[in-house]
Amino acid sequence: MKNFTWWNPTIVIFGEGTIPQIADQLAVSGVKSVLLVYGGKAVFKNGVYTQVTEALTKKGIEFPELGGVKPNPTIDKVREGVARVKASMVDAVLAVGGGSVFDTAKAIAAGAFYDGDAWDFFEGKAQELNRALPVFGVLTASATASEVNNITVVSNPQKASKTSFVSPFLYPRVSIIDPSAQFSLPEDQTVNGGIDVMIHIMERIFDGAADVELMDEMGYALIRSMMKIIPELRENPENYAARAQYAWAASLGHDGSLSCGRGERGDFSSHKLGHSLSLLFNTPHGASLSVMMPAWARYLYTERPAPFARFADAVFGVGAGGEEDMAIEGIERLEGFFRSVGAPTTLRELGVKEADIDKLAQNAAQFAPFGVLKSLDADDITEIYKLAY
Amino acid sequence: MKNFTWWNPTIVIFGEGTIPQIADQLAVSGVKSVLLVYGGKAVFKNGVYTQVTEALTKKGIEFPELGGVKPNPTIDKVREGVARVKASMVDAVLAVGGGSVFDTAKAIAAGAFYDGDAWDFFEGKAQELNRALPVFGVLTASATASEVNNITVVSNPQKASKTSFVSPFLYPRVSIIDPSAQFSLPEDQTVNGGIDVMIHIMERIFDGAADVELMDEMGYALIRSMMKIIPELRENPENYAARAQYAWAASLGHDGSLSCGRGERGDFSSHKLGHSLSLLFNTPHGASLSVMMPAWARYLYTERPAPFARFADAVFGVGAGGEEDMAIEGIERLEGFFRSVGAPTTLRELGVKEADIDKLAQNAAQFAPFGVLKSLDADDITEIYKLAY
Repeated sequence: MKNFTWWNPTIVIFGEGTIPQIADQLAVSGVKSVLLVYGGKAVFKNGVYTQVTEALTKKGIEFPELGGVKPNPTIDKVREGVARVKASMVDAVLAVGGGSVFDTAKAIAAGAFYDGDAWDFFEGKAQELNRALPVFGVLTASATASEVNNITVVSNPQKASKTSFVSPFLYPRVSIIDPSAQFSLPEDQTVNGGIDVMIHIMERIFDGAADVELMDEMGYALIRSMMKIIPELRENPENYAARAQYAWAASLGHDGSLSCGRGERGDFSSHKLGHSLSLLFNTPHGASLSVMMPAWARYLYTERPAPFARFADAVFGVGAGGEEDMAIEGIERLEGFFRSVGAPTTLRELGVKEADIDKLAQNAAQFAPFGVLKSLDADDITEIYKLAY
Repeated sequence: MKNFTWWNPTIVIFGEGTIPQIADQLAVSGVKSVLLVYGGKAVFKNGVYTQVTEALTKKGIEFPELGGVKPNPTIDKVREGVARVKASMVDAVLAVGGGSVFDTAKAIAAGAFYDGDAWDFFEGKAQELNRALPVFGVLTASATASEVNNITVVSNPQKASKTSFVSPFLYPRVSIIDPSAQFSLPEDQTVNGGIDVMIHIMERIFDGAADVELMDEMGYALIRSMMKIIPELRENPENYAARAQYAWAASLGHDGSLSCGRGERGDFSSHKLGHSLSLLFNTPHGASLSVMMPAWARYLYTERPAPFARFADAVFGVGAGGEEDMAIEGIERLEGFFRSVGAPTTLRELGVKEADIDKLAQNAAQFAPFGVLKSLDADDITEIYKLAY
């Protein structure tokens, strides 16, 4: 078990009917004006926009608005937000939406006191960030855990790059999670988000770290829970207990706690391979992962069977057999679970053609070498996309 | 699943060789003088006192000392510390030791700016606390999770009372956990501490809360891990991987995270019943729990079998049978585990006589009614001590 520092300052207010509390939280923090960041129509349909703005108005808090954040959010929207906060002198940024909105709000908050272009941070200049606007949020779609972590993931289409930026200044001050606000999410978003949650955990338990059985066990527990919850929500999207546990599992799965003792934050090769799919084919994040994680695992399991075999036993009860046999059975069962909830497991299903593989591999290889269980070079990356096809 | 607020501001620095960092942490917080609180000889024997004081000296931080904190710490020592900090104007309190030292340091920090007697807080006047000295700590014995929570438990022998006080002002600012500092702990302390950890988790999963399977699963994972780790440490007390996972499980088991969504912080009847044993018979905390938790469970399982049956299945694989049969088999297997690691499961083994039961029951009943799965009155309490005998 490796040394680590654990700290997570975000205050989470969780439960039905909690949304109006965001205005109280802003008020006690002395915020008089906040940039309200949101996405598309969902926040109007589910009533969250009305709940938030009524609460803000009641407290006398001004809220210039920045709508139109899209899934796989782009640096252009961040730049638009940075220009707005520099011009309007708001005291904070308020995300009202899902992970894309939170990621955008965090990047805007980082850019607020920075003279250069906000994309600089995503190109490795995070050390230049020594101050950011405080971020508050009301979550309407659980998956990325952006509401409780210090990460923002943004795309730059001009540079054909989708990447992350991590800084202690990016933890939201307060995040409100009302699971009932997620009742109206479309089924595919619930499934994709749930897969994202499962794979955040797998990126850690498959990293090959030693002497972290305790954290692995916590991870298996979360994955088994998600595998019960996702089908329950396909059955009844307004099952509050399932929505609530889904939401909290999403937060716990990627708030950083499962990385304690692992030395790295996780492997995250599947995420990186998936980012190129999202960028070039606009594939939903979760769908990119249900395709790439099994392909990555199939590429590696003969060389490094142990973590996959333990996973197969803990999650699917594959208790007997050699390590390699157990490992591949676990991978196959995982693919079977993904298919059972309607998620894709091949590039073909995403509309990717065999001729596109080189383009994908080139895009992902710009970040190579990457990976913890195995460091992947450009050839490895090509082979994994082929396996995914 | 009930609504909740989750927040834990403590910074944990975890791992081998991290102890000297406490001085850096104090220095960056602007601390120039700290009350150094510790217990008996252990911190001299294990070298931690030397590591801490050398690091403080190097940073030019003064450290008036308050040694002699005993297990089941008393309000007298707290009062002594409060008098010291009021007289010497230190900037912070530094705990160097186990849970008793942390609890004492936290109570001293609370008393520092309070005009009345520090025991007031333990008698329900917590609302009077609106400021406390910052608490820092170096942990040398994991069990109570005092290093990561907002709780202090102190005894008042004059009033024959051992009770807790909870306040957001009591979270340590920074806690250093170096598992190798625990290599030299005596075996009985390792076992007792491990049982304390297991029972912090059981106090939650046995509370009867609905729709919290996710948190239950996390709890089962921690308990199963502890049941592997405790025997490993009896075998080899210098097994770093086991010490590290024990330490982190202890912190996670009672940092409050497992209470999210449960509505209450847990049942904690076994803790309250055990506190009277510690107070009147100086029973180590863990030993009081290995006796009282099974007795409490035996008293309740026919009326409320469900949480015990689920526990039996998840922890011991008791998959078949009626709920009551599964429940009692789980309780028996738990007692079997306690005996297998040398822990007591009856009052007799603690030297308590049958004639003492009334005295114990009277002492515990001063806090009655208490309990969440079942609210216990004085008669219930007497019956449970009889079952424990």
